Amino acid sequence: MAENRKATVYVRLKDGVLDPQGVTIQKALGQMGYNDFLSVRSGRFFELEVNADAADVEQRIDEVCSRLLANPVIESYKVELNS
Amino acid sequence: MAENRKATVYVRLKDGVLDPQGVTIQKALGQMGYNDFLSVRSGRFFELEVNADAADVEQRIDEVCSRLLANPVIESYKVELNS
Repeated sequence: MAENRKATVYVRLKDGVLDPQGVTIQKALGQMGYNDFLSVRSGRFFELEVNADAADVEQRIDEVCSRLLANPVIESYKVELNS
Repeated sequence: MAENRKATVYVRLKDGVLDPQGVTIQKALGQMGYNDFLSVRSGRFFELEVNADAADVEQRIDEVCSRLLANPVIESYKVELNS
């Protein structure tokens, strides 16, 4: 039965892919005196509310991730169903 | 003793703060035929590696969050120590 369900999708750059935003933040931290921060990697997450069948919801979200939310060439994603 | 520790910081807009990126994604999904996505909220996360004492690490990360990673006026953050 279709119900409102919540999910969170975490999108991050694959290991080995350069993360200029993370590098910039790490440098900025160094300039602020926080030299003990050795590395910073950045990512995005999306909190989704979707009206779907329990059987369907994972596949729908997976589709949306690879078509819009993430770039599968350089990014990986993880889906977490909250309810 | 100072050790390398990993932490993840999740930064999101406070409830009630308009999220134009989320709204845009939700509209784009609608145009692609995904009308069952009722709402989308976006956020950022940062994977940090920090060399610090166990007693110190949470406070260091907290400082960095409110000074650089998040805007406390409109955003809230959550710190998760991974090791």
